[in-house]
Amino acid sequence: MKAYLVFFFTVIVCCAVAQSPSVMPLPAKYKTHGNDFRLSTSFQIEIKGNPDPRIYKEASRFMQRVAEKTGLFFKTWMVGSESNIKEKGLTIIVKEKGEIKLGVDESYALQIDKNQILLTCNNDIGAIRGLETLMQLIQSDANGYFFKGMSIEDEPRFPWRGLLISQPYHFMPMDVIKRTLDAMAAVKMNVLHFYISDDQGYRIESKVYPRLHEVASDGMYFTHEQVREMIDYAHQRGIRVVPEIDVPGHSTAMIFAYPHLASIQRQYALQDHWGVFDPTLDPTKSTTYTFLDSLLTEVASLFPDQYFHIGGDENTGRDWKKNPSIQSFMKENGFKTTLQLQNYFNRKVQSILQKNGKIAIGWDEVLMKELSTAEAKQYFEEGNYHMLVEKDVPKDIVIQSWRGMEALLSSAKNGYKSILSKGYYIDLVQPASYHYLTDPIPFRNEVIVPDSEANFDRFESEIIKKIKQGEKLITKEEEKLILGGEATMWTEHVSAETFDSRVWPRTAAIAERLWSPADVRDVEDMYRRLDGISVYLESLGLTHIKNRDMMLRRLTGKEDVTSLSNLVQLLEPVQGYKRNRADNFTRFSPYSLLADIAVPDQKAVRLAKKQLATYDSNQDDVQLVEIENLFNSWKKDAAQATIDIQNIPALQDFKPHAISLAAIAELGLNAISSSKDKSLQQKFTTQQIELILKKANEEAGYCELKIVEPFRSFLERLLK
Amino acid sequence: MKAYLVFFFTVIVCCAVAQSPSVMPLPAKYKTHGNDFRLSTSFQIEIKGNPDPRIYKEASRFMQRVAEKTGLFFKTWMVGSESNIKEKGLTIIVKEKGEIKLGVDESYALQIDKNQILLTCNNDIGAIRGLETLMQLIQSDANGYFFKGMSIEDEPRFPWRGLLISQPYHFMPMDVIKRTLDAMAAVKMNVLHFYISDDQGYRIESKVYPRLHEVASDGMYFTHEQVREMIDYAHQRGIRVVPEIDVPGHSTAMIFAYPHLASIQRQYALQDHWGVFDPTLDPTKSTTYTFLDSLLTEVASLFPDQYFHIGGDENTGRDWKKNPSIQSFMKENGFKTTLQLQNYFNRKVQSILQKNGKIAIGWDEVLMKELSTAEAKQYFEEGNYHMLVEKDVPKDIVIQSWRGMEALLSSAKNGYKSILSKGYYIDLVQPASYHYLTDPIPFRNEVIVPDSEANFDRFESEIIKKIKQGEKLITKEEEKLILGGEATMWTEHVSAETFDSRVWPRTAAIAERLWSPADVRDVEDMYRRLDGISVYLESLGLTHIKNRDMMLRRLTGKEDVTSLSNLVQLLEPVQGYKRNRADNFTRFSPYSLLADIAVPDQKAVRLAKKQLATYDSNQDDVQLVEIENLFNSWKKDAAQATIDIQNIPALQDFKPHAISLAAIAELGLNAISSSKDKSLQQKFTTQQIELILKKANEEAGYCELKIVEPFRSFLERLLK
Repeated sequence: MKAYLVFFFTVIVCCAVAQSPSVMPLPAKYKTHGNDFRLSTSFQIEIKGNPDPRIYKEASRFMQRVAEKTGLFFKTWMVGSESNIKEKGLTIIVKEKGEIKLGVDESYALQIDKNQILLTCNNDIGAIRGLETLMQLIQSDANGYFFKGMSIEDEPRFPWRGLLISQPYHFMPMDVIKRTLDAMAAVKMNVLHFYISDDQGYRIESKVYPRLHEVASDGMYFTHEQVREMIDYAHQRGIRVVPEIDVPGHSTAMIFAYPHLASIQRQYALQDHWGVFDPTLDPTKSTTYTFLDSLLTEVASLFPDQYFHIGGDENTGRDWKKNPSIQSFMKENGFKTTLQLQNYFNRKVQSILQKNGKIAIGWDEVLMKELSTAEAKQYFEEGNYHMLVEKDVPKDIVIQSWRGMEALLSSAKNGYKSILSKGYYIDLVQPASYHYLTDPIPFRNEVIVPDSEANFDRFESEIIKKIKQGEKLITKEEEKLILGGEATMWTEHVSAETFDSRVWPRTAAIAERLWSPADVRDVEDMYRRLDGISVYLESLGLTHIKNRDMMLRRLTGKEDVTSLSNLVQLLEPVQGYKRNRADNFTRFSPYSLLADIAVPDQKAVRLAKKQLATYDSNQDDVQLVEIENLFNSWKKDAAQATIDIQNIPALQDFKPHAISLAAIAELGLNAISSSKDKSLQQKFTTQQIELILKKANEEAGYCELKIVEPFRSFLERLLK
Repeated sequence: MKAYLVFFFTVIVCCAVAQSPSVMPLPAKYKTHGNDFRLSTSFQIEIKGNPDPRIYKEASRFMQRVAEKTGLFFKTWMVGSESNIKEKGLTIIVKEKGEIKLGVDESYALQIDKNQILLTCNNDIGAIRGLETLMQLIQSDANGYFFKGMSIEDEPRFPWRGLLISQPYHFMPMDVIKRTLDAMAAVKMNVLHFYISDDQGYRIESKVYPRLHEVASDGMYFTHEQVREMIDYAHQRGIRVVPEIDVPGHSTAMIFAYPHLASIQRQYALQDHWGVFDPTLDPTKSTTYTFLDSLLTEVASLFPDQYFHIGGDENTGRDWKKNPSIQSFMKENGFKTTLQLQNYFNRKVQSILQKNGKIAIGWDEVLMKELSTAEAKQYFEEGNYHMLVEKDVPKDIVIQSWRGMEALLSSAKNGYKSILSKGYYIDLVQPASYHYLTDPIPFRNEVIVPDSEANFDRFESEIIKKIKQGEKLITKEEEKLILGGEATMWTEHVSAETFDSRVWPRTAAIAERLWSPADVRDVEDMYRRLDGISVYLESLGLTHIKNRDMMLRRLTGKEDVTSLSNLVQLLEPVQGYKRNRADNFTRFSPYSLLADIAVPDQKAVRLAKKQLATYDSNQDDVQLVEIENLFNSWKKDAAQATIDIQNIPALQDFKPHAISLAAIAELGLNAISSSKDKSLQQKFTTQQIELILKKANEEAGYCELKIVEPFRSFLERLLK
């Protein structure tokens, strides 16, 4: 009875606190009132004004989604220009057609009243954003479904909110791309960065250089019609598609298909491994530019967006240094570093793009000056706080920063536009909270985020020092040059089966960072809404939840995998680049094992951590009973999992984790018993405990049991 | 301890019985020996002979699937003509290129020995079938993965093993079609019957009559390139694709796009509802044939298969009777029935197909003579046992029978080829056992299957009577005219989310019926293998298991749906055409509710039934303890489910079932208690029990609780 009362009280306290609406990203402004709009089968949508027809399709899709969520039998889902509300419904008022381009007005206002919902916006893209907000606002009670009475005024903080998908490593087929676009639209992202070419493959059809897809794709590529299908699908959702052809490095596939492009003549093959490789286009030969002119012109005509990414990253320069004729060329032209030669190359590529009406984007290297560590040190000691940039880089190039602060700052200080990706590398399977707190304008003390595991920015610490000293490094005007950010899904360690669970739901946190006001930074509230959004996104076909058990079933061959599933939810894949070590993985590796089934930032881990962390020995016993239940469930799952993996070699990576979980559960149960009854002997010595916890912290199968440290801290508090 | 011993003994007994290999369809001949082939990372495939290159792709796909199942890190998955085994591996020997056409040799021989696996076949299509067998044979023990030493000689019983997918009702996008083709290949089916046109929509692009896709598809159609993509994907797996353009009935979409085709001029629109409708092409106008000539020629050139389905079913004839000019035409030509007019129409359509080198297929109506019931009765009484057919129907037409025995028999007796679909209507959500026992040659006493719920065959009982009297109705030669069968997935009551769970795993039972020898008819063994195949098929991307919980999560908005999921596994959607009543459903209905989440032929129901049915009061108590556990789990799930559905209107259909399950569990637990301790009073009167069971048998949300009758029988045995 006591437990019940406590539970009841907790609920009351919870409800009394005004929660933000369970919407992600959180709208810029919102205000609730009491007049809810109740949904019924007579609900209809009408659209007024002068919109692009895409809004009719999106409104029809909205009707279908509402029907599937609520079970309401509407007479029709179809919404057209002639649709009229007979009883109650949603009126969308759109002033003009929206253009799918950078900077288009995406704002909307939503007014939910008892008898009407009004969605007002400048263009249909704003309307699409507003529909996605409304969709997330559906609630229900015993009487039916309703939208809470409220008014919302919303617009994005940044105009560039992207997701990069790399196709060369693991190819993601059309259905993966489409459901990703659906999910992006659901969280109001507006750029798909479609990364086409790398050392492992070239992934779209080329009619001008057909060996690119015939020879350098292993049959995995999009035809022109499929590219158009993807772009149409994206545009329908108000999402731009920006292509990237990465040159002059990352070009083994291109060279494998057309060896005359190479800086060094050797035997080429598609690269099976992951990493940075030497093959590089020869920037001194006119035939290289003839090739790029035809190819980029073809690709540029296929992708209507004004921006075109030319890569430019991670050119090792080694092949250029090996080739005497390239070396002479550098001398003749006064290029001291290979980066200067690359800048020469970039300018030529950029002029091809300009001819095609395109604006180039490149990674940090297309702008940054190459300094030795000593030079850089001196430069900073002289009081400079941003990097030197190369001369002669056209001012309209956009810098996509994988290095973070240094590149952002240098770009802005030199008048270049930029987008941030460092801190949004979702392939590194870090927690959503880290990405969430990474701000695209990281130059204020309040928004500095501790180093991630992937810090490529040699001078970040210098910059942070200055910020902490209160220096204002960047003006309001310069800040405006930072267009937003892009989450990057480099697909080395994902398959089409695991792609969703590496991208979602964490990317929704990045989407909120890029859309919502800068001061929306409450991590706990973000996680509350993220857990909801995670389930919500499944309706769009995402497999991030449901493929876990499917993959376990493949390995066990059995339908019931409850215990293994519970165990794996306490494990997370190793973060950062730890999976790259020892060169174990290639594009022919199975991505169907423990580290692929476990997902980053597990909800069950967060909940367990919270439960253990909030234990307070001065409180009553209810908490302890619940923790005892938790340990008992761990014990049971560990035991059953141990049975389930017998005779299944592919599941042996689970074994040490199951053993550790069982041991921890036993430790915990024993400690709880002896804390309740002081006459009972502690079964384990401090040394034994330390040994168990040390063992439990060990990685196995590229995974870590993530509840060890919170458990240790709980144990210390319990036993003190 | 006693329980443990019993369990141990059962296992021993089980293992002592020689089980058929867990392969589906079961091979024609197989024999095991002791020399297993152990898999290691050095496993390779080499291919000798003169195959079509498609086998390299399939062998590469095989390597990938093995890697993902076993976790083995092979050096590469790629298999080419130059691939050579270095250590141990699979040698495929292929005599010649296989042609994707009816009757191609699909046989193969598989020899698994300690140091080599040998797959020998006449052509690469046989090799593809053999690879699918091998894939299913992977086993593991503590030492690793292996193939059991055995030899297999296998070939199909029927050359036509198809699955029909209707695109007009609910459109299935490319990813659904592709994973269906993967699953079909896994169970050795070889025909995708692609049903394009009906009253609700026209689903492929037409360049000659673009209004067909522009106006009559709501944007849901395959482009020519997509059709080719689908066909390539199918051919890669040794699967033919046969198109169907259903004429002259089922043609509202066609008429909506091109109203001049109509027999009656009225306002046309795409049909929203399901059923049989009057709109029919006008068979008397030359413009109708001009249209069909161009259209069918276009479609014929798109689908390379030699067969082309022209439908011909369910023409109500009403529009023809209403049109005076069509009536005069009939009189002029001496047509007494509309079916005769349709035969005239068919002949003209067939000549268009012949011109295009195609052989026509049609439903029963294209051949059968229309008899009144009185005429038919007399005809049978005169001793005839097969139906009359129309004269002048060209002999090369193939009859696809949705009526069953009467059509099969009439076709064969008159020298027509046929394929059976009656009994394979998987959209009617009947148990796999029913489909499994339905034989394409049903004219022997041993293979007669009781009437299904969808019996359209007015004279089946007459035919069955004759068979039971021992009459031999069909000769061996006539039997050969029966080419096989087709499962039909009419998509009225499925969405892209539920498609897989309505098709799989049950269709695997039909695939076995059509492939394996006629005497492979052991239902229990079929289910044992079907449960395995069900999990196996998931690896191909099928959603038939994983979408259950996803759909529950959409409705609850919560991640944990364990109890609802357990409850729904005891429920099955109503069978046959019961969901069509009251005209509730249209193409704008939500197919996301209880009857869509519940799947046919639930495994949990089968297991519970078996557990309850095998209870023997003379045995020891172990069985009863397990049944008690079962009832306790029902009780717990019913209670939790009742909480979970609170305030969620779309889940209220679960409520009566949860109440019934709780009541049954309570009944059962009470009965077990009182059976154990005779001094305890039975809490429930016979009347109360009857009331509870009656209530529990009531349908709710188009679903039935399927454990009521086995429970009743258990209760009677327990309490007697």
